[in-house]
Amino acid sequence: MAAAVALSRRGCPASAPNPNVGCLIVSEGRIVARGWTQPGGRPHAEAVALAAAGDTARGATAYVSLEPCAHASARGPACSDSLIAAGIARVVIAAQDPDPRTDGEGIARLQAAGVEVLFNVLPAAARAAMAPWWTRQAEGRPFVTLKLATSLDGCIAMANGASRWITGAPARAHGHLERARHQAILVGRGTLEADAPRLDVRLPGLEDRSPKKLLLTSGTAPDGWMAVASPEAVDDVDSVLVEGGAGAASAFLSADRVDRLLLYRAPILIGSGRPALGDIGLTDLAEAHGRWRLADSRLLGSDRLDVYERNRTI
Amino acid sequence: MAAAVALSRRGCPASAPNPNVGCLIVSEGRIVARGWTQPGGRPHAEAVALAAAGDTARGATAYVSLEPCAHASARGPACSDSLIAAGIARVVIAAQDPDPRTDGEGIARLQAAGVEVLFNVLPAAARAAMAPWWTRQAEGRPFVTLKLATSLDGCIAMANGASRWITGAPARAHGHLERARHQAILVGRGTLEADAPRLDVRLPGLEDRSPKKLLLTSGTAPDGWMAVASPEAVDDVDSVLVEGGAGAASAFLSADRVDRLLLYRAPILIGSGRPALGDIGLTDLAEAHGRWRLADSRLLGSDRLDVYERNRTI
Repeated sequence: MAAAVALSRRGCPASAPNPNVGCLIVSEGRIVARGWTQPGGRPHAEAVALAAAGDTARGATAYVSLEPCAHASARGPACSDSLIAAGIARVVIAAQDPDPRTDGEGIARLQAAGVEVLFNVLPAAARAAMAPWWTRQAEGRPFVTLKLATSLDGCIAMANGASRWITGAPARAHGHLERARHQAILVGRGTLEADAPRLDVRLPGLEDRSPKKLLLTSGTAPDGWMAVASPEAVDDVDSVLVEGGAGAASAFLSADRVDRLLLYRAPILIGSGRPALGDIGLTDLAEAHGRWRLADSRLLGSDRLDVYERNRTI
Repeated sequence: MAAAVALSRRGCPASAPNPNVGCLIVSEGRIVARGWTQPGGRPHAEAVALAAAGDTARGATAYVSLEPCAHASARGPACSDSLIAAGIARVVIAAQDPDPRTDGEGIARLQAAGVEVLFNVLPAAARAAMAPWWTRQAEGRPFVTLKLATSLDGCIAMANGASRWITGAPARAHGHLERARHQAILVGRGTLEADAPRLDVRLPGLEDRSPKKLLLTSGTAPDGWMAVASPEAVDDVDSVLVEGGAGAASAFLSADRVDRLLLYRAPILIGSGRPALGDIGLTDLAEAHGRWRLADSRLLGSDRLDVYERNRTI
């Protein structure tokens, strides 16, 4: 099941607006096929895996990260019907689909056809792997990641604005990988004017993944950019990477619109530099606690990446 | 050898002004005795271990973290003579003693008596375990640790000065343990006046370890405190823990007098708070790199402690 969930990440963000799903087909103890939701949302993961499995699907077990859909569309049949037609004997599901067109209906249809179904076996991991789509479904807003690259004393630049480079090449490459995982990147006007960032993905093989470019501004945006007036105004994408600077970061934090923090920290001290954040509306230290949990921590060259996730009850 | 080096840490800082040494005696494959330098510097580690070993020392191997001393004093005989007299057959030494009264002489005396000697087998670890004494020997100054307790965005307090509490109980207890490991604690006048810190060791069994209290000030110090006018003026102790605030931290960093950084970081964001450091004299970002290496990293409750050491060639 965990392998199917891991596979589902390959579909993010290209599967939007459809969920990024992963599917493994196991026959006689061997993985005979795998699939994940393709760019644009079709074919679905199950359709890819069934096509690869061919006749070996008969009597096999399918592991899917999300409940197979129950609604046919002009772009393809419902996956629950396809699994039944292929002769799948058992379906193991990480998470139930909150989409009202499926939400239990896929499970019911499989069971009615005599397929054994195990469901909700790894819901938290499945939700995390499709966080952008899930956040859109559950809260009607995009999933937001805030990236900060600082010195050990929390500065994002020297007082004169110099910030090239604080982190090293491995951390910067990881930052580009994170860009490729998002539908859009956002900066504030100060960053646009000071750094004129390209915000593209400069990693071999991922150049075509460069996401949309959003500018947080009350005014207009230059060519190639889309203006958004506030954190709440971002609504045509399911995932946003907020890359800079302190103003944009603080605006998203003040609005409690940050779900994930990427903290890249270089082993240097700056002193009297530019702080990572401005006012985020905190009035009491006690309120600051309990909001973030450490989700990952790793060394990237001599820099450290800590990933924190917002504690929410969704 | 590593076990003898680890044992040596137990003598720090109480052994000052003598080096904190560890000694293990191994006979027929078993550890038969161990010792470390006692408070005030006597008895030496070897004397403690030989007394515990008794007759089992004959023909045994002694592992010592520092070359056995060659100079007798009114407070006891030279350890190289004691090892010979006890019939030790082999001595394994982590690091040679830079003290000119010994510096190779202990090894020579052992060898002249027919004792087999292996030396300099773990010098870096031994030096690290006795860093205060070693720094005093090599550079004529104390070993300085700077402690910073910050939010993820590098603040040591809210803008109004509130800093209770940023880190949690496990991190604060670790901070008290670090106090017990130092001969002196230093704060600046701002911290003294704002927080009136007790700076004692509030850990069961270690209350009597509370170190000297130093105040970085151009003026005078209150009762129970010693005034020091500058980082370079600290000279009657071998180890100092700089605890606060930004002014004292920046003064020690500007003078390049910090050897070790303790960074306690709580999983909170403050925004617009008080920065950990003021000006530390940095003029070019490139100069900031290469000065610090990560020596340890651990979670303390929900906080993270990262320990960085200054890259020096001593």
